[in-house]
Amino acid sequence: MKLSELGEDAVVTRLTRSLRLDNRVKLGAGDDCAVVETAGRLLLLKSDCVIEGIHFLPESNPKWIGWKAMCRSISDIAAMGGTPLDALVTMAVRSDTEFTWLRRVYAGLKLAARTYEVNLVGGETARSPGPFFLSVALTGSVEDGKYIARSGGRPGDQLYVTGKLGGSLEGRHMRFRPRVAEAHWLVSRFPVHAMMDLSDGLASDLPRLALASRLGFEVDTGSLPLHRGCRAENGLSDGEDYELLFAVPVPVKKQLEAEWQGKFPKLRLTAIGKLVEKGATHFFGKGYDHFAR
Amino acid sequence: MKLSELGEDAVVTRLTRSLRLDNRVKLGAGDDCAVVETAGRLLLLKSDCVIEGIHFLPESNPKWIGWKAMCRSISDIAAMGGTPLDALVTMAVRSDTEFTWLRRVYAGLKLAARTYEVNLVGGETARSPGPFFLSVALTGSVEDGKYIARSGGRPGDQLYVTGKLGGSLEGRHMRFRPRVAEAHWLVSRFPVHAMMDLSDGLASDLPRLALASRLGFEVDTGSLPLHRGCRAENGLSDGEDYELLFAVPVPVKKQLEAEWQGKFPKLRLTAIGKLVEKGATHFFGKGYDHFAR
Repeated sequence: MKLSELGEDAVVTRLTRSLRLDNRVKLGAGDDCAVVETAGRLLLLKSDCVIEGIHFLPESNPKWIGWKAMCRSISDIAAMGGTPLDALVTMAVRSDTEFTWLRRVYAGLKLAARTYEVNLVGGETARSPGPFFLSVALTGSVEDGKYIARSGGRPGDQLYVTGKLGGSLEGRHMRFRPRVAEAHWLVSRFPVHAMMDLSDGLASDLPRLALASRLGFEVDTGSLPLHRGCRAENGLSDGEDYELLFAVPVPVKKQLEAEWQGKFPKLRLTAIGKLVEKGATHFFGKGYDHFAR
Repeated sequence: MKLSELGEDAVVTRLTRSLRLDNRVKLGAGDDCAVVETAGRLLLLKSDCVIEGIHFLPESNPKWIGWKAMCRSISDIAAMGGTPLDALVTMAVRSDTEFTWLRRVYAGLKLAARTYEVNLVGGETARSPGPFFLSVALTGSVEDGKYIARSGGRPGDQLYVTGKLGGSLEGRHMRFRPRVAEAHWLVSRFPVHAMMDLSDGLASDLPRLALASRLGFEVDTGSLPLHRGCRAENGLSDGEDYELLFAVPVPVKKQLEAEWQGKFPKLRLTAIGKLVEKGATHFFGKGYDHFAR
């Protein structure tokens, strides 16, 4: 069977069965990051990649290619409530590539590293026979060993997203800002039960969070915070928003919204729905009422 | 200027200038691994990759593709005197790939992970528009925070290589065994000044070790331990031997060779030359006498 017939989630689930994991591993494949006890502390580990023709185009600004590659992994560390630490950059590049182009890619990597206080400590540079490939592996720390997985959601939890969704292909998919400070503030002040970053779009990502928590969800698509010119469909399916999706108990709703407004006045926080007992995996709203794929 | 005109080392040197590194970083880009203080201990970090058409062929046995990808990074951890800990796998794969083929790649990754007691904790699976790309990022630990860089060589040090060199394309470049136990034993018993693994061939790699140590070298190519059917030229330039190259002070020579023979009777250890004061970067021997490239 071809991978395209199985789908990404099924492929990953099948491949990562029966992995050898010792008791240092608190969380393995399947969440935003792995969590591994290292020298008595919890270390977050994540790698991700961008590929020419898939995540960017040959004519894309090389600086933002580097930025995007670094920030995708940073966004995953943020989504665990963590602080990014050290990055390894692995790239495959055609030998007829202009050095100045590659230097601009690196300028983007370095800019992201500086912005988020990440050390770029090494990696590997190899020759590619075709598309440019750029992978960033990243370590991260979590305060007091506390990390937020996708699996901690509880029935009735309020679901929030930060920022606005949809239309990322206009340019935001390259120049997004990982929500490191926001996530860190959130988990230090509120009982966040579950969290992840939105990379494939709410319609793909929320079912993953719900499944990990063994719950369903109800989301009113009329409530989605959308970028200008976007419809609910875009907010659900365009993907590459790199905003936070998280679940908190309902009683903190009022305080969270008030404090958020004071702390991050320029970034919207929107209650989009709830986690519910297993069974219901529902997006509903005007002209949109079907089960999530 | 094209990358091919600059060469890999010059490209990497130029790109990794003026990186933001805080004081947790003990060793950044340029050695086999990075060394970063994490939770009061030293953590080794390394990523590497294999690419279809460069490091293996479409018809290569998928199991050994996975093995090779994992073992390249393990070999780098070993070359620092470290123990590999946790791995992240990032891959880009065409969507028309057969799942059974990818499962066999994973079987090789898992086999290497089991063999070297590595946890495979996560990563990312993406779509490739062309060649298969497989990257492994790996953490590692070093006992008492001791690690062996390339830069510690001293004038007069005896240079050794483990195993035999040359002819890896016969199949060894896919199925090699990283020298984890050997390196660990070495650094725990002997004052190893400098060490690296041989991935590009002695003629490329030894100058790197010498340069990092600000020294020259003298190697008699007649002394190289060669695989059957290989000439000195193969031992110097074929690459992908994944053997250890290391430097120790001359006074330990006799004891090292005797103990090695008792501990690893099946793996050759060969004195191939010496580190010398800067200036001399010489391979000499029958029909082979030129400066290293």
